Amino acid sequence: MPKKRRPLSELEQTADFISRHIGPDESQKRQMLRALNLPSMDALIQRAVPDSVRSRGGLPLASTHTEKDALDYIRKISSENDLKKSLIGLGYHNTVTPAVLRRRVLENPGWYTAYTPYQPEIAQGRLEGLVNFQQMIMDLTGMELANASLLDEGTAAAEAMTLIRRQTKKKQSQRFLVADDVHPQTIAVMRTRARPLGITVEVDEPRNFGDKDAFGVLVQYPGTYGDVEDHSEVVKKIHDNGGLVAVASDPLALTLLTPPGEWGADVVVGNSQRFGVPMGYGGPHAAFFATHEKYKRSVPGRIIGVSVDVNGNPAMRMALQTREQHIRREKATSNICTAQTLLANMAAFYACWHGPEGLTTIATRVHRLTGILATGLEQLGFELANHTFFDTLTINAGDEAEAILYRARDRGFNLRLIDSERIGVALDETVERYEIEELWRAFAGRNEIGMRAAEMDAVASDGIPNRLKRTSAFLTHEVFNSYHTETEMLRYLHRLARRDIALDRSMIPLGSCTMKLNAASEMEPISWPRFASLHPFVPREQARGYMRMIRELETMLARLTGFHSVTMQPNSGAQGEYTGLLMIRAYHESRGEAHRDVVLIPTSAHGTNPASAKMAGCEVQLVDCAENGDVDLDDLKAKAEKHSSRLAGLMITYPSTHGVFEQAISEICELIHSHGGQVYMDGANLNALLGVAYPAEFGADVCHFNLHKTFCIPHGGGGPGVGPVGAAKHLAPYMPGHPFEPSVGGEDAIGPVTATPWGSAGILPISWMYITLMGAEGLQQATETAILNANYLAKRLSEGYPILYTGDTGFVAHECIVDTRVLQDEAGITADDVAKRLIDYGFHAPTMSWPVPGTFMIEPTESENKAEIDRFCDAMLRIREEARKVASGEWPRDDNPLVNAPHTEAGVTADTWPHPYSRRVAAYPDPSLKADNYFPPVARVDNAYGDKHLVCSCPPVEAYRDAAE
Amino acid sequence: MPKKRRPLSELEQTADFISRHIGPDESQKRQMLRALNLPSMDALIQRAVPDSVRSRGGLPLASTHTEKDALDYIRKISSENDLKKSLIGLGYHNTVTPAVLRRRVLENPGWYTAYTPYQPEIAQGRLEGLVNFQQMIMDLTGMELANASLLDEGTAAAEAMTLIRRQTKKKQSQRFLVADDVHPQTIAVMRTRARPLGITVEVDEPRNFGDKDAFGVLVQYPGTYGDVEDHSEVVKKIHDNGGLVAVASDPLALTLLTPPGEWGADVVVGNSQRFGVPMGYGGPHAAFFATHEKYKRSVPGRIIGVSVDVNGNPAMRMALQTREQHIRREKATSNICTAQTLLANMAAFYACWHGPEGLTTIATRVHRLTGILATGLEQLGFELANHTFFDTLTINAGDEAEAILYRARDRGFNLRLIDSERIGVALDETVERYEIEELWRAFAGRNEIGMRAAEMDAVASDGIPNRLKRTSAFLTHEVFNSYHTETEMLRYLHRLARRDIALDRSMIPLGSCTMKLNAASEMEPISWPRFASLHPFVPREQARGYMRMIRELETMLARLTGFHSVTMQPNSGAQGEYTGLLMIRAYHESRGEAHRDVVLIPTSAHGTNPASAKMAGCEVQLVDCAENGDVDLDDLKAKAEKHSSRLAGLMITYPSTHGVFEQAISEICELIHSHGGQVYMDGANLNALLGVAYPAEFGADVCHFNLHKTFCIPHGGGGPGVGPVGAAKHLAPYMPGHPFEPSVGGEDAIGPVTATPWGSAGILPISWMYITLMGAEGLQQATETAILNANYLAKRLSEGYPILYTGDTGFVAHECIVDTRVLQDEAGITADDVAKRLIDYGFHAPTMSWPVPGTFMIEPTESENKAEIDRFCDAMLRIREEARKVASGEWPRDDNPLVNAPHTEAGVTADTWPHPYSRRVAAYPDPSLKADNYFPPVARVDNAYGDKHLVCSCPPVEAYRDAAE
Repeated sequence: MPKKRRPLSELEQTADFISRHIGPDESQKRQMLRALNLPSMDALIQRAVPDSVRSRGGLPLASTHTEKDALDYIRKISSENDLKKSLIGLGYHNTVTPAVLRRRVLENPGWYTAYTPYQPEIAQGRLEGLVNFQQMIMDLTGMELANASLLDEGTAAAEAMTLIRRQTKKKQSQRFLVADDVHPQTIAVMRTRARPLGITVEVDEPRNFGDKDAFGVLVQYPGTYGDVEDHSEVVKKIHDNGGLVAVASDPLALTLLTPPGEWGADVVVGNSQRFGVPMGYGGPHAAFFATHEKYKRSVPGRIIGVSVDVNGNPAMRMALQTREQHIRREKATSNICTAQTLLANMAAFYACWHGPEGLTTIATRVHRLTGILATGLEQLGFELANHTFFDTLTINAGDEAEAILYRARDRGFNLRLIDSERIGVALDETVERYEIEELWRAFAGRNEIGMRAAEMDAVASDGIPNRLKRTSAFLTHEVFNSYHTETEMLRYLHRLARRDIALDRSMIPLGSCTMKLNAASEMEPISWPRFASLHPFVPREQARGYMRMIRELETMLARLTGFHSVTMQPNSGAQGEYTGLLMIRAYHESRGEAHRDVVLIPTSAHGTNPASAKMAGCEVQLVDCAENGDVDLDDLKAKAEKHSSRLAGLMITYPSTHGVFEQAISEICELIHSHGGQVYMDGANLNALLGVAYPAEFGADVCHFNLHKTFCIPHGGGGPGVGPVGAAKHLAPYMPGHPFEPSVGGEDAIGPVTATPWGSAGILPISWMYITLMGAEGLQQATETAILNANYLAKRLSEGYPILYTGDTGFVAHECIVDTRVLQDEAGITADDVAKRLIDYGFHAPTMSWPVPGTFMIEPTESENKAEIDRFCDAMLRIREEARKVASGEWPRDDNPLVNAPHTEAGVTADTWPHPYSRRVAAYPDPSLKADNYFPPVARVDNAYGDKHLVCSCPPVEAYRDAAE
Repeated sequence: MPKKRRPLSELEQTADFISRHIGPDESQKRQMLRALNLPSMDALIQRAVPDSVRSRGGLPLASTHTEKDALDYIRKISSENDLKKSLIGLGYHNTVTPAVLRRRVLENPGWYTAYTPYQPEIAQGRLEGLVNFQQMIMDLTGMELANASLLDEGTAAAEAMTLIRRQTKKKQSQRFLVADDVHPQTIAVMRTRARPLGITVEVDEPRNFGDKDAFGVLVQYPGTYGDVEDHSEVVKKIHDNGGLVAVASDPLALTLLTPPGEWGADVVVGNSQRFGVPMGYGGPHAAFFATHEKYKRSVPGRIIGVSVDVNGNPAMRMALQTREQHIRREKATSNICTAQTLLANMAAFYACWHGPEGLTTIATRVHRLTGILATGLEQLGFELANHTFFDTLTINAGDEAEAILYRARDRGFNLRLIDSERIGVALDETVERYEIEELWRAFAGRNEIGMRAAEMDAVASDGIPNRLKRTSAFLTHEVFNSYHTETEMLRYLHRLARRDIALDRSMIPLGSCTMKLNAASEMEPISWPRFASLHPFVPREQARGYMRMIRELETMLARLTGFHSVTMQPNSGAQGEYTGLLMIRAYHESRGEAHRDVVLIPTSAHGTNPASAKMAGCEVQLVDCAENGDVDLDDLKAKAEKHSSRLAGLMITYPSTHGVFEQAISEICELIHSHGGQVYMDGANLNALLGVAYPAEFGADVCHFNLHKTFCIPHGGGGPGVGPVGAAKHLAPYMPGHPFEPSVGGEDAIGPVTATPWGSAGILPISWMYITLMGAEGLQQATETAILNANYLAKRLSEGYPILYTGDTGFVAHECIVDTRVLQDEAGITADDVAKRLIDYGFHAPTMSWPVPGTFMIEPTESENKAEIDRFCDAMLRIREEARKVASGEWPRDDNPLVNAPHTEAGVTADTWPHPYSRRVAAYPDPSLKADNYFPPVARVDNAYGDKHLVCSCPPVEAYRDAAE
């Protein structure tokens, strides 16, 4: 059967990736449209998306690319980055990522595609990694409690400041003192954060601290110039005055130094990057936060705690309800929601890989080489500004400083030019002895150095004062002393990954957290050394590839949304919200309207919205929702009117958090504008808009985009996230600046919100790849398919459950709210029971009880095909039937497969089976599961127990001993 | 507690990798030595290794390197490879490896560390991949049966020749005809193979074939110069004469061409490389072999068949006992033992990824661009030698040929210079239209081309004759039509990998197949484009990096073994044996002793030894073993004496296949030498020798090394393998040559044994990395630890089982034979029962019934630590206890956990439990398994059933329908 000759253009498959990314093929799309009684995709979009917001014409983007072409292109871009060895310090250091961690964690979808561990039963693997992280931080800092990571050292320091403000006895003071040898970018972020809260950040030498009236202080240990100082006197004075002390520190240094917890610190923060996480031109890395146990309810971010399951077996879960849905809205103490789970896990595994002895050896080597470098520099006639040090030296180089800097660069090193006369050099675990000699040569210029590093070993100075030498043990738990061979590490990582459900197993049907495909070709570039290994503060001309990639991504995002400019700095969605609000406030201020500080927020908003608003110094006024889930227009009008003169703006999610394209969005935006307010759009649901509507066109002034939702950065098991902000022209001048990077932010810029100019630059290639691969055509198809999938899913589930909100035309947007409360009414089956029963069917649960208690929010995304959606719907409908059996009395209310879910392997293979339903019903509720069943390693976790008995550390050594017996 | 100041050299951790690779740490080593009542490692080695073979002094190797340094160094080496676009053809083509396959198969230890699927229950994942491969080949070639891959196209063609010789009715003829447009390297390999078998390979035009008396023929389709010829007339004539027809073909071309099976081919072979497998400068790739079902018992290599398990569920396993232990020794028809499983799986997944339509589109594009190129070249005034084509053109360029070649190279392309006047160009799926224009420019020289590729689309010639256009459907099975999105492919690969036990789960305690760590940093370089993407026949100056790496590796291997020279060409261990024997024969021949053709082989030898000897045209004489497992010296002397004048040599494994360092090895070698024979040492057990003894020193003349055993190339689930051969100075001149590479082999060289000069060059970086990382110190430690581990394991297992052979001092070498026949005698429990029960304990079974029936051979390797060895020994000893319960009558002989093993998840969760032992005993025989249990997806596989009902294809579409209902 000879076929029609196909033209070359059709054979070239340039759009091949689109069909790789989008789940349903044309035939499945037709079937789903048929189920919705719709003739075409266009018909669906016309009905689902209000005419008033729908854009006409295609996206102004380049065409789609094949995976090969896009990879070739971005490899070329990466080659424009010039990879020198950066010894700049400032909290970022070269590190050797153990290859087994790169391959089995960073490059393994089993780790990087997992979601935040809200469902602890299917997340015991990554939860164990995070407990290891917490234990590691507690041990290194000498503190009682650590959280499971924060976004970066700068914001961690800011969070320390606000925790101290909450906990200090010195409530009357608004002054917070920061040591003058804290990293400058940390100070800059703190100043940004302090201002709207009315805190005065004052920078001074620590020895002057005692004389000032301040509610708290921050010192750095070792300092940014290298000094290792004994702060115990300062601590005593501050404590005596009723203030509290935060310390910024370095995890590698702490293996050799007396930990801050032993000399009185109340909070210790820092960056764990140098524990095996590539610098990535600024991030992502896991910052840490440790404090006293008594402050546990005040700690920002997530804490993982050990609790028990219903069988009394130990089981981990996020403790103290540190969940974004539980963010206490306008009463929140922080808007922190995302963590840096993937990177925290990597850092913790790095500690497992090296163990306490290995880390100590590394630190001792770094310190020894620093001593050799110091002694040699002194022999060369240079004056050192610091005589105590761990890994960093400051050299008073006089007017030679700049010349030395360039000579070092010629030899392949970036040093830190502190000011016109001082040079900083920070060593790290990758530095070898020949490089010390190279550095000497760079300093010596034309003079012969006449020394060998090895020869100087014996006479090298020791930079750590005796009284600050660490004597306490650390990382004594078994987990840090068991996986030192690659075979053991490989199996440990495999065991942990097996326990979890990630996207490589099955659909993760969350709502509002777009869990779509994270394609391998999107991920590959982030492992390339020319993206992974750049220090965030290298000279711009060494980062041309990054500059190009970032500018292109900014342009693409601006074009996709209609905004004038985009800033990549915010490293989470909530950071984006915060940034946008600060920009709005700065805008008002520039117009002499600094008093505009009221932000209207619908009650349906993400909890981070009011939290961010509060942090930006705003007053939050809630706006009611109408019965149909939309913003109550009357209430909005009334509130806007009432606060008209003080109105800063409105925060609104579009499509709404109820999964609906509200008809009135343009009208709402106009109303706000008419009262002098600005519209902040929460871009969490942007996956329903690309190519269909432009936020900037229907009235949003500023908006953040979640690259980790819409633009394919994987969730990493609970972070990283990236939350760039797009803004209209009038707001663009207020985008955040950075003290080290004049090209970021203009003269009206707000201060930096993140420690580095472009935030988590190292993972931006993922989104660049996604947009480049999909092009205008693909992104529009993705949006349309996401809407189709959601409507098909809603239609199927409506056979068993009420669908809570739909638009005027009866259609949802890209997600829907499924009401499981009917099961509660009929049979006492809670949403939690349904969620846990879904695990027996091999699924991660949807977003629960948000934005409506007792319901599920589900977003299938465009990447799931009809077969997987059907499999999920089948499971939900079977559960519906199971609940009927409970309602009918066939199964007792307190002993049925729903309340007992999830079932573990140990349970269904137990010798006795006490339940009124069969093992088969427990284990294989869906016959299709037989070949590839998933069992969680623990049964339902008891949250209350864990909160009552907070344990956030690794099991004590005795526990292992008990288990062995 | 201030510690002693450690010197810098100690802090530098240059030997860090050694402790990452070797399982037990110093404390575990001490414990094991104590258990063996030995004071030190030296004491062990003195006792285990005979004084006569033990080397004095360290290995002449560079020192150890850190992973970072070694990676930096090999990256620099790789950068010396110049990556141009090779359009050389000859069976090797650029291909786009789908990123999801690169990341989730090629770079996933779940796939690459798995062993050959001898234990089908724990290998259903990779077995499914291989059945897909077989089905794909059957579909593309139009044949009834395909095997699960062969080593390369050259040897596959040689195997076709010998199968035809076995099956032909024309037994009297020794003549095999090969078309003159078969790839030259294929012909060269066939000549090498034909000679010792007394076959005359005659090359001629196919149209002359019918007039000659030959037992078979080989044609290439499309031919090496591009022609797509109709061979049906030739086939008819050959068949009429009683001969059989083999066809070498190309999988991508076969999507558009009438498959050879439809025009009468009896065997079809080829290379599946272009289905997503990087060229790797020559390999490894999966060659294929397809034939009629009636020849199934004559097919070389492995065939995967579908059988049933004891519950009647479908289950796959290697069919027809295609297992190396079952190689029929000197009666074997081939020495093929390894396959290219990892690469075959990749090729099959590539077909699943694209499906029949995708592959057809790719092929049509390649063909269209070839047509456009052809039409354009004609317009430029060039004469084409072929007017039928799929992707390859031969251009009669006259005296301009060389200039065109260089102009093309300047534009970034390698073309094929066929002879002084003819140029070959072969297109592939990566070629884009602009490149066609570049090629035109290269041909046109200073002339303007005045054409655009797109404009030529409509007028491009079609190179496929109408009568050879494919009309039959292919890849219609569901598996080729289900995984076209990355999400679905990701989950499919995850599902399959989950079913298997690989080294990332637990110890694989084989004997004679060193299953040690395959470290991530050893594996990383093979993914780098500058290693992965080189065509095997690029000009030498473009492969400087490869040359350097290969020379260094050859030198390292020579130094480690004491040999004069090493050839990297053999791409499996058996190929190495064959190569060594051909070298021995060529040596004798050079001395006028061509009649020396008797090879002595101990009865304990690997089955491939006599098979290889037969293929090398030798007569095999078996030598008895003494009761203690050693070679029976009296018998050896008698046989050597008897065959003295015809003695070619001896093949001997050292340490012996019984896992013992025979004391008499030097004496044995001297004896053979005294009779004018050469000693071939089988290097399978080299892991017991490195740094402890040099084969060349104690008398071996030639020896192959299994890089996939001793030198960390992973087993890939059953291939690839690499079997370089080292030889003493007098044998070195006979190392294999290659028609395209004068630097390989001298004037006395035997012909090529592999299609490419350096065999599977693409994976040699793995072994280079291993040796570089370990250095002399590490390799010696590895050997010693392997011996320690084996002796400790033997000691522990001796509590429950007899250990069959030990050396004179009571010690084994690096492996041991454990006699499970006691269980048979006591309780009717077979070795198979024990092997399957080990699965319930989470372990892969040891090597079974070889070299002694009813026993286990176990080699723990140096990479397993004491904890894992203890876990394994505990399992074995618990099984011993379980057998006692059967013996005592506590459990019936026909219903106990041993005969019912392995237990599946479905079984232990079934609603009824009919067995006299508990579910817990079935599912968790070892309480430590609870958290991380493994269940096989099928119960014990019925081998006999599958052999009686041979099914080697994917399930028919009806089966899916049935399953769905």
